[in-house]
Amino acid sequence: MGNTFGQLFRLTTFGESHGGGVGCVIDGCPPLLEVSEADIQADLDRRRPGQNRLMSARQEADRVEILSGVFEGKTLGSPIALLVRNEDARPQDYDPIRDVYRPSHGDFTQEAKYGVRNWRGGGRVSARETVGRVAGGAVARKLLEKECGVDIVGCVERIHTIQATLDPEVLARSEIDASLVRCPDPVASTAMIAAIDAVRADGDSLGGVILCIARGVPAGWGSPVFDKLEADLGRGMLSIPAAKGFDIGSGFPGTMLKGSEHNDAFRMREGRVRTETNRSGGVQAGISNGETIVFRVAFKPTATIRKPQRTVTREGKETTIEVRGRHDPCVLPRAVPIVEAMAALTLADHFLRHRGQTGRAGSAL
Amino acid sequence: MGNTFGQLFRLTTFGESHGGGVGCVIDGCPPLLEVSEADIQADLDRRRPGQNRLMSARQEADRVEILSGVFEGKTLGSPIALLVRNEDARPQDYDPIRDVYRPSHGDFTQEAKYGVRNWRGGGRVSARETVGRVAGGAVARKLLEKECGVDIVGCVERIHTIQATLDPEVLARSEIDASLVRCPDPVASTAMIAAIDAVRADGDSLGGVILCIARGVPAGWGSPVFDKLEADLGRGMLSIPAAKGFDIGSGFPGTMLKGSEHNDAFRMREGRVRTETNRSGGVQAGISNGETIVFRVAFKPTATIRKPQRTVTREGKETTIEVRGRHDPCVLPRAVPIVEAMAALTLADHFLRHRGQTGRAGSAL
Amino acid sequence: MGNTFGQLFRLTTFGESHGGGVGCVIDGCPPLLEVSEADIQADLDRRRPGQNRLMSARQEADRVEILSGVFEGKTLGSPIALLVRNEDARPQDYDPIRDVYRPSHGDFTQEAKYGVRNWRGGGRVSARETVGRVAGGAVARKLLEKECGVDIVGCVERIHTIQATLDPEVLARSEIDASLVRCPDPVASTAMIAAIDAVRADGDSLGGVILCIARGVPAGWGSPVFDKLEADLGRGMLSIPAAKGFDIGSGFPGTMLKGSEHNDAFRMREGRVRTETNRSGGVQAGISNGETIVFRVAFKPTATIRKPQRTVTREGKETTIEVRGRHDPCVLPRAVPIVEAMAALTLADHFLRHRGQTGRAGSAL
Amino acid sequence: MGNTFGQLFRLTTFGESHGGGVGCVIDGCPPLLEVSEADIQADLDRRRPGQNRLMSARQEADRVEILSGVFEGKTLGSPIALLVRNEDARPQDYDPIRDVYRPSHGDFTQEAKYGVRNWRGGGRVSARETVGRVAGGAVARKLLEKECGVDIVGCVERIHTIQATLDPEVLARSEIDASLVRCPDPVASTAMIAAIDAVRADGDSLGGVILCIARGVPAGWGSPVFDKLEADLGRGMLSIPAAKGFDIGSGFPGTMLKGSEHNDAFRMREGRVRTETNRSGGVQAGISNGETIVFRVAFKPTATIRKPQRTVTREGKETTIEVRGRHDPCVLPRAVPIVEAMAALTLADHFLRHRGQTGRAGSAL
Repeated sequence: MGNTFGQLFRLTTFGESHGGGVGCVIDGCPPLLEVSEADIQADLDRRRPGQNRLMSARQEADRVEILSGVFEGKTLGSPIALLVRNEDARPQDYDPIRDVYRPSHGDFTQEAKYGVRNWRGGGRVSARETVGRVAGGAVARKLLEKECGVDIVGCVERIHTIQATLDPEVLARSEIDASLVRCPDPVASTAMIAAIDAVRADGDSLGGVILCIARGVPAGWGSPVFDKLEADLGRGMLSIPAAKGFDIGSGFPGTMLKGSEHNDAFRMREGRVRTETNRSGGVQAGISNGETIVFRVAFKPTATIRKPQRTVTREGKETTIEVRGRHDPCVLPRAVPIVEAMAALTLADHFLRHRGQTGRAGSAL
Repeated sequence: MGNTFGQLFRLTTFGESHGGGVGCVIDGCPPLLEVSEADIQADLDRRRPGQNRLMSARQEADRVEILSGVFEGKTLGSPIALLVRNEDARPQDYDPIRDVYRPSHGDFTQEAKYGVRNWRGGGRVSARETVGRVAGGAVARKLLEKECGVDIVGCVERIHTIQATLDPEVLARSEIDASLVRCPDPVASTAMIAAIDAVRADGDSLGGVILCIARGVPAGWGSPVFDKLEADLGRGMLSIPAAKGFDIGSGFPGTMLKGSEHNDAFRMREGRVRTETNRSGGVQAGISNGETIVFRVAFKPTATIRKPQRTVTREGKETTIEVRGRHDPCVLPRAVPIVEAMAALTLADHFLRHRGQTGRAGSAL
Repeated sequence: MGNTFGQLFRLTTFGESHGGGVGCVIDGCPPLLEVSEADIQADLDRRRPGQNRLMSARQEADRVEILSGVFEGKTLGSPIALLVRNEDARPQDYDPIRDVYRPSHGDFTQEAKYGVRNWRGGGRVSARETVGRVAGGAVARKLLEKECGVDIVGCVERIHTIQATLDPEVLARSEIDASLVRCPDPVASTAMIAAIDAVRADGDSLGGVILCIARGVPAGWGSPVFDKLEADLGRGMLSIPAAKGFDIGSGFPGTMLKGSEHNDAFRMREGRVRTETNRSGGVQAGISNGETIVFRVAFKPTATIRKPQRTVTREGKETTIEVRGRHDPCVLPRAVPIVEAMAALTLADHFLRHRGQTGRAGSAL
Repeated sequence: MGNTFGQLFRLTTFGESHGGGVGCVIDGCPPLLEVSEADIQADLDRRRPGQNRLMSARQEADRVEILSGVFEGKTLGSPIALLVRNEDARPQDYDPIRDVYRPSHGDFTQEAKYGVRNWRGGGRVSARETVGRVAGGAVARKLLEKECGVDIVGCVERIHTIQATLDPEVLARSEIDASLVRCPDPVASTAMIAAIDAVRADGDSLGGVILCIARGVPAGWGSPVFDKLEADLGRGMLSIPAAKGFDIGSGFPGTMLKGSEHNDAFRMREGRVRTETNRSGGVQAGISNGETIVFRVAFKPTATIRKPQRTVTREGKETTIEVRGRHDPCVLPRAVPIVEAMAALTLADHFLRHRGQTGRAGSAL
């Protein structure tokens, strides 16, 4: 339990970093959506390691195969199973951690929960499990684009202390992907790259913040009181490996404002109700209000570092560990497509739920 | 849909701020747990308005009635239905907002979604719906205390720019409830009270941050990859009215650290694996690690203010609104028991899920 | 867990036969549906005891109160909570069974599961819990009528060995309710009444079969492979107290036919695809085909009889029991509205699910 | 939606009869259960076509691959993905049915629902989807055997009008599998074989009834009021292709008894509460009572027959169809392992749910 996301557009993922493969089953996707392996591969390519020198040097082609649910290029309405075979496993890399818990990793907690773990590469809590999320998210994204014109764009807003200057309303994926760190502010991007290069050389790691937006979401999505749109977005984001925080709209900084400074005044524009500002982040009382959805996700610095660290063995002896292997000194550039995927999955689910309950794709107004 | 929280310990809430009442049904509570109306009432009394001058002056006794599921003082294993009647409704207070959307409130989005809203008091998105959460949370808390010795404590850590100095490991509910604002730092508490008094006089409002901890959670709770403990905690918190952000452990500030500064080294203490520091916030890779769970929730300033605001009518005319009625200038003191309730509900659910899958209440180690 | 039915149109019921009350929460009902207490009361009145001499003499008015979710006569899209207070409890009637397990009742299994039971009247497994089903089903029925013109009609087809002759295509509720046993075949009805009178006098009980149809269901509802329409209908029916069997269309008797005798040939009629016969019972491969849905539910004879029976005490001593109290010698007449309610709930849920996934209320053809 | 079964032990299946493959993901399986591909293969071999002359001549080896969730021969607690590649596809066999609806098959209803179907082999409603059920059921069965000693055995009780004489308490799988039709009554088995041979020669088909039992289920499993054990068993069985009915214990025939004849008297035997008879079929009020669970499933005659049948084309023209291809004249022998798999999945789920809610594997008494 715990490997399914969504209620009407349901993603179930599977797979460890070492084993037969990773993938997902999408249940509930509407029929007659055009989906190809190339569509899905494009998003997977943005997630895979080895894209550039800032990332793990692992070479995983991550070729996706559609096992079911698509016929003559279109979805059938039946479950879409997607499989990516594992490759380039160097399990011997993991021999040193077989009997030792890596600090701030999932080695200890997995054993505490299950009494067992696949010590080859982190098993199920490896970032490799996110392949299934990105593959499923690619289908969700296509659905949202086709049915509602929704466009989801994520980027790196901060790495360590280097903060980019970004306007959520004008983010463009082309500019984002042109940056090695997926930050469209050129000055910040350069500084971020330098910072990652520095910690990589030093065997250390960095964290930061990803900004993500969704444009074109109509007013009306979200299901109070527990399945509010921000609650489900937050759940999705906080389930990503290394995520430690989530906020929407004005978020944590907005708590420093007074109500009179924070409220978004309503205005009429082009014949519909709009807000003058967007401190709500596109969601009010758990329901989208037709403005751009804007949220942020905090990622801790990568737990796997090359510096020596104190830890304990499975037998309870204190020891020192120096982890080898090929790891990202900063996960954020590769986490951008994962954040987008979780956003797409959340929104696709709420689109279908809203349509089910109300008979409409969007607003009643 | 959207009004149920949890999978094995399931809370379903109902009720608008004006109507017959608010309440909840708890399904899946283990049998033979001692539960009385007095137990639940104690938590409701910490949530209700009118506790002191900082809160809405509404006088709602909020007396809870156990309708089912408890027999001779103990749970039966069947659904526990709890009802709190609505009282002190002054619907005429709401006549002015019948045809106008209050900024940053749920008036507009509810109509966008459903084509209708109960304009008397905000309907389902009123904070009054949290009565059902707190009532259900009281039962969850009792279960956690009895079965696992878990203790959940929340408090106000910041209001506006006034930051308390708190040590998550030593929070005591008695000290917290001794403060009108539920902040156990006496200096900060005094300043917070003054700040709230000031905005109340001015017809404005404030936001801030609530800190919450759970002590005694054994290692092993949480269900990767989507139902990670932090993901479900985050979902619960972000579903609370006015919540705009959530982080766990080091959270957003932790993204400013390097991996070598951030990782929690493992040590042996009293015969079990512990971490020297707790930047993980008690959760690693989505599973509790036996340390204190520590998280924070950001609350925006109350949307309802007395100052004039620009908005539009249901007919699409721009206008100015001045909201009357009895509202909290700062929701945080009353939100503390709500945060605790959502934490208790999340943890109770993961306790039962863990016990179901593994046959143990806690760690396998 | 176990007290919620449905995924998009979700019913959660609560309540024991003795305690504050019984009722339900409906989550996911579309907004703007006209629902009144009188609408719901009408169905409850068909379920309540004491309607005529064939039923338990208990006098329970079973007045329903809408606690939430309805505003100015229409649904809001928020949870609809319905409450019926318990009355006319004579708990002393149950003293003799406090420490004895009634044969073929739920006394023993409830204690085996939970270690406790509400021995006053059977607790949660009392047929009184079906009040919440019938109340929720009344709302589902209104939704189906309004949105799709679906009409659900159940009746008694057999009691003990007395088989009525019925044509599923022409059942009329007025004729059914004109019969004390809800059997529209006048000859069979008379014989059934006589048979029930006889066993009532003798302290014994009878079972039988209820036939239920749903007219006007469009082609397309049902979600293979596990949530096939017949699977969810069957689940709903088999969850009714005393139900021991379910079949659809040709059902068990149809297994005596050859494929060439059983298959429903397709024909064009009035411009759409129809079947010449309806052995499929309106469902093919788990999806409605636009024909009348026809199914049957088997009910065992009432477990509570006045004749002496051998049993054991809670302490494990063999003994003889003679149950007093006011019980129905045959549950079928009162079970008709329960069967209809579960059918309405199942169909309403599948209607919303189908609309969510496909954007249509009915068929794509 | 609709392709997941279970709440704590969750099976999600995928795959069409023609395409990359069929399979499943099991989420929630407890860790440290020994599972091998050979274990699963054994059950798949009992399901696959071509086992003997009574079955479809298709030659599908149906080799299963464990993609994830098992490490060093034991489950990890993470999702177990199982894949069986499709082989021996002769899609040209299906060209004649591309534009014609086969009577009593899912061709028409799939198009009505989704606006599209994979016309090669029936797509998702093909019996081939049951590969994923049987594979998942093999894991569930291992869990039940290991943790609780539960033994599940199914067999053919009737084909067409040929009724076997069977004692549910003494069914042995070895005797069952020794019969080509999986009927352990040798006289009936011989007659059934002859009957199938006859309709096969004639291009016709037969249906019948499968009897299934589960021995060793402790008292206490099942979750009233909607997730009663018989309701979830019924749902599982009615979701099997060609199933048209389900009953438990005395079932439909039991409705012909009076209460005094039907009730199961309680007795003390070997220190625990037992019933003298088992008309309840091992379940009372939705909860297992510790007796053998006994239920039956009705299967209609195979829809695919070689005889000419009247039908319509996708364009709405009436026509006659003669289906070719390799089909089973009677599905029951191959449906036995599918029935067993659905029983195992249902019971495994209720085992974990019961353990979650109560902390026990079985009875509290």
